Amino acid sequence: MSIRVGIMGYGNLGKGIECAIKQNDDLELVAVFTRRAPESLTILTEGVPVYSANEAIAHKDEIDVLILCGGSATDLPAQTKEYVQYFNVIDSFDTHANIPEHFSAVDEAAKKSEKIGIISVGWDPGMFSLNRLYANAILPMGKDYTFWGKGVSQGHSDAIRRVPGVLDGKQYTIPVPEALDEVRSGSNPELTTRQKHTRECFVVAEEGADKVKIESEIKNMPNYFADYDTTVHFITEEELKREHSGIPHGGFVIRSGKTGWKEENSHVIEYSIKLDSNPEFTASVIVAYARAAYRLKNEGVTGCKTVFDIAPAYLSPCSREELIKHLL
Amino acid sequence: MSIRVGIMGYGNLGKGIECAIKQNDDLELVAVFTRRAPESLTILTEGVPVYSANEAIAHKDEIDVLILCGGSATDLPAQTKEYVQYFNVIDSFDTHANIPEHFSAVDEAAKKSEKIGIISVGWDPGMFSLNRLYANAILPMGKDYTFWGKGVSQGHSDAIRRVPGVLDGKQYTIPVPEALDEVRSGSNPELTTRQKHTRECFVVAEEGADKVKIESEIKNMPNYFADYDTTVHFITEEELKREHSGIPHGGFVIRSGKTGWKEENSHVIEYSIKLDSNPEFTASVIVAYARAAYRLKNEGVTGCKTVFDIAPAYLSPCSREELIKHLL
Repeated sequence: MSIRVGIMGYGNLGKGIECAIKQNDDLELVAVFTRRAPESLTILTEGVPVYSANEAIAHKDEIDVLILCGGSATDLPAQTKEYVQYFNVIDSFDTHANIPEHFSAVDEAAKKSEKIGIISVGWDPGMFSLNRLYANAILPMGKDYTFWGKGVSQGHSDAIRRVPGVLDGKQYTIPVPEALDEVRSGSNPELTTRQKHTRECFVVAEEGADKVKIESEIKNMPNYFADYDTTVHFITEEELKREHSGIPHGGFVIRSGKTGWKEENSHVIEYSIKLDSNPEFTASVIVAYARAAYRLKNEGVTGCKTVFDIAPAYLSPCSREELIKHLL
Repeated sequence: MSIRVGIMGYGNLGKGIECAIKQNDDLELVAVFTRRAPESLTILTEGVPVYSANEAIAHKDEIDVLILCGGSATDLPAQTKEYVQYFNVIDSFDTHANIPEHFSAVDEAAKKSEKIGIISVGWDPGMFSLNRLYANAILPMGKDYTFWGKGVSQGHSDAIRRVPGVLDGKQYTIPVPEALDEVRSGSNPELTTRQKHTRECFVVAEEGADKVKIESEIKNMPNYFADYDTTVHFITEEELKREHSGIPHGGFVIRSGKTGWKEENSHVIEYSIKLDSNPEFTASVIVAYARAAYRLKNEGVTGCKTVFDIAPAYLSPCSREELIKHLL
């Protein structure tokens, strides 16, 4: 019998979940919920119903795990603690500073309803967090580094688009190769924000707009660009569509540390990902944790969990024997 | 109160365990057991007793976790199932093909004694296994690659030393850079043994030995060298001591896979380590799992476990709140 999965929210992430379910034989998509008019939505999987988000609770007994695909700014802080009253849920809440608060709210609701809610699943938070934890546990005397990119930052792209005279734009975050090499050498450097990443912007300006002024406004924008070396390229709308419509991303988690009686030996642990599609990869991580949620719930585990709390074997469709034989 | 750790076997790995315990405030070394004459052994930690291995069982109530530092060929197959009758134990059993059998034997004994035994801990098996599992769960449509090195292979160095006319020798396993790049490109290549690794040997020959013959014997040795491109350098004993006395190692676990409705997007997940000291790094992983063993046992978990069965949070000395705040 398959694990019955529901998707709440059908944007890029929701579509990614749908694609990931297709790759996993033990999972089955049983419903998609949307805040749009359900009849306006065409999904990829044949024969799966689309319902209004308002009707979700009526379907609670048909769904083993509900995957929440909303945004972290306003959707998830309300949705996860609401839906965990009725469903086992997974979210990808990624506002790092607010995770403790989100955890408490979801934990309280989940313990009451005796459901499980796994929060902040994806790659950062998610796989990057796991790698930080493992590397810290192995090398207690060391230093962590996280680099993001090369990849599209949605927040920075949005910020560009708010600049007067800008029609459209896309921003790439790029790790500085020299900084990466320095970290990999094990020298434990202190790196400033500017030394770690550069930002590259592709901007479509309105006809007759003051490009010098746009470039200066972008480069000096506080929080978003002022602390970075930023490059601005003006391109046509066609070029933006042709060359920059993908959502690639990636990054690096590196810990370097010392061992030995006198800390005489250096070690470097590096985890990196290179993604053609950020939402599809995030979705693939989430779907593996949906499997874990289902199994843990069946063992009687309830409350809020994070990737830190879940033994790796729960993520795999393989039996313990197969895992030991083929992957250990 | 600290977790009281005992070390069984004081070779390179045992010494590494001793050094790793020093870096972890919640762990305390309470005894070292050896098959040598205990009075002949000087350990690094002041005030810690050295006992004969024969006396270990008499000290069972003083030790929370006993770390078994013997070899996989003959020591661990006998020791782990023996000592788990009296102690919670960790080993680094690394004969991949025999792990299922070892697991069963340890599991049976551990369930009887109500102890926990974590086997095959280190980096391969160990951290590499974990990364294979996570990456397989995330990208079911993909291909795994493991590269080892650059590093010293003990088995291959021993094989060199058995060649007539050879006084001493050291062998390095080296991943082929072009193969690594091809894998990282996401092209999912089929690679032969020869295409993945080269072997580099530093050999000290007896005076007057036939170097051409030695080189040929090494390069054509079945299983060890015949399937690889091997380079042999003849050097002096002094040079070997000066330049090749370290035990560096490392390696790469890479999985590349596809996502998307038509598998149109590629992703690459890469985990790599670069180690000055193979035994000290292995020891550092083991010590983190000793912490996990202690905690799991306190929660009532018994039997044989692998790295796949243990939630990451158990490895860290930090509280769940700290982990969420600083690493998630």
